[in-house]
Amino acid sequence: MNGGASAALGALPVVATVIGDPAGIGPEVCAKALALDRDPRSARHLLIGSIDAVRLAVAASGIACQAYPVRSPGDIDDAADGIAVLDPGNLPRVAWSVGQAGAASGRAVIEWIEIAEGLARDGQIQAWIMAPVDSSSLKLSGKVESIDDLQPEGTYLLRVSPSLRVVPITEHIAISAVPASVNASSISRLIEVVDDSFQRWGVPDARIGVAGLNPHAMGMEEAAEIAPAIERARAAGRRVEGPVSPDSIFRLAIEGRYDVVVSMYHDQGQIALKTAAFEGACTIYVGLDYVRLTVPHGSAMEIAGKGVAQHASMAAAMRMAESLCCGKGFGDGPP
Amino acid sequence: MNGGASAALGALPVVATVIGDPAGIGPEVCAKALALDRDPRSARHLLIGSIDAVRLAVAASGIACQAYPVRSPGDIDDAADGIAVLDPGNLPRVAWSVGQAGAASGRAVIEWIEIAEGLARDGQIQAWIMAPVDSSSLKLSGKVESIDDLQPEGTYLLRVSPSLRVVPITEHIAISAVPASVNASSISRLIEVVDDSFQRWGVPDARIGVAGLNPHAMGMEEAAEIAPAIERARAAGRRVEGPVSPDSIFRLAIEGRYDVVVSMYHDQGQIALKTAAFEGACTIYVGLDYVRLTVPHGSAMEIAGKGVAQHASMAAAMRMAESLCCGKGFGDGPP
Repeated sequence: MNGGASAALGALPVVATVIGDPAGIGPEVCAKALALDRDPRSARHLLIGSIDAVRLAVAASGIACQAYPVRSPGDIDDAADGIAVLDPGNLPRVAWSVGQAGAASGRAVIEWIEIAEGLARDGQIQAWIMAPVDSSSLKLSGKVESIDDLQPEGTYLLRVSPSLRVVPITEHIAISAVPASVNASSISRLIEVVDDSFQRWGVPDARIGVAGLNPHAMGMEEAAEIAPAIERARAAGRRVEGPVSPDSIFRLAIEGRYDVVVSMYHDQGQIALKTAAFEGACTIYVGLDYVRLTVPHGSAMEIAGKGVAQHASMAAAMRMAESLCCGKGFGDGPP
Repeated sequence: MNGGASAALGALPVVATVIGDPAGIGPEVCAKALALDRDPRSARHLLIGSIDAVRLAVAASGIACQAYPVRSPGDIDDAADGIAVLDPGNLPRVAWSVGQAGAASGRAVIEWIEIAEGLARDGQIQAWIMAPVDSSSLKLSGKVESIDDLQPEGTYLLRVSPSLRVVPITEHIAISAVPASVNASSISRLIEVVDDSFQRWGVPDARIGVAGLNPHAMGMEEAAEIAPAIERARAAGRRVEGPVSPDSIFRLAIEGRYDVVVSMYHDQGQIALKTAAFEGACTIYVGLDYVRLTVPHGSAMEIAGKGVAQHASMAAAMRMAESLCCGKGFGDGPP
């Protein structure tokens, strides 16, 4: 490996997936996606987490595929069609039960995430995916307050559906705090990070639409903060338009005018995304040297272990991770 | 006529349409909708505005239909298949030009709207529709600052598309002013007005979904203002749910869970509506004793007089006006 986010020349990238909460549907959707939808020509895959959980998931799902332990990504056996699992041994089988949130699971998940981050920073994996974690387990762990705390500082969450890509400048903050968060320097930084990321992922000269904050993009913040940030980006040669009326920009994006929309607050983009086309969406962290994704569904404790969990979102996330980390775009045709 | 919003027993309702800015596409879409898509069994129709503008529109559209003057709705000739026009004679032909905004047009439109309102309040017409006005003409008139001033006090704007019905508690206010406008008494009043209107329009026991304000409906305003308003409405026997996460509620409504969504600010609903399905949408004023609608497009000065304007939105608005004022629902199948 030559470090950073690139695989060695000619080598397949390694895509790791943290199994998420062992008691939820994470292990099942990981195992099913790898057993049923893997393309061995695109990437080498690895799960990070409890191998017990993966084996239970394989059994529950009725798939013909064995999990085998590895100590590092270098141990992945390309000849085997089993599932490579890196298990640091931090979660005894007796410490958790399928379908139940718990402190031990929450603590273990946080450590698995740290392992994935470390491998990615070292260039030992080129992308990693987070299967569904559970907010109750995380809270019980005493290590984090909420899922929001798992977002690395300085990153943004890009939502990608088959019809729309949206990244907001803030996440779960109150609407009353939104106007103060709309400032030129934050918007400038987000535009830069998005444009540079798209370039690296295989979408050069991305067409970026920036939403306004207020109805019809006619308000103080548009003139004082958003327009100057857009001007700065355009002066730097970036293809940026806006501020566009918030109730028009997502339709324009769906119709192909923008490769990505920068939105001014969480719901502005989420309403568009979840109303128009939620199926197949995943979330990509923008602002990292490597590719990191999550799937858009929860740990679904109530159906865990029953073999009924759908793995389509996880399979789509794996395809997208493979494509992005090789600079092949979003895997949905020409950008 | 027996006053109020009802036509005399057995009589067809009268639906009036203000032609909008005479220089825009309003007269054309009105004339085309009446000439090509009228169902004489559903209502008696009347235009209010310059008969010169209507005659020019008829000629430009190449439709075989004559405009004839009437002094009141009682003069509509059911036997004739022409277009009845109530023209108060307040706009000389020399005072305006097709395709150009102007003060005289703006002033005339405002007077036509006042005539329609007067007829509706008197029960001489049961519904009226506003064809596209022009914001420049209105501003030049010196009588109003913007189109927003045409909204009667105490009314709300319900947007209706084939898949979604949404009414916000406020219209064009800055996002920074939104949190203060989210208060229990306003929300209570809007829920009552919407529920009573739906009842009258032919949708009894409407299922009303109320959106939250903040991401995932988890914030101060939800607990302090929105939830109490919902509780009060439920205690009064109304079918109200919420506060629902803003990024889920519109998808739920599209899937049939709610007859109408009460939203907390303009863009919350408009983003959903315009992203998901804008075609065929119209706007209904809620809080009046009679039915009043507008079409969702503008005056399109640049194509006025060319006979190319599409009249589908106007025809849909006329069908909806006919249906609502007879208590037959939204005209899109069972509610």
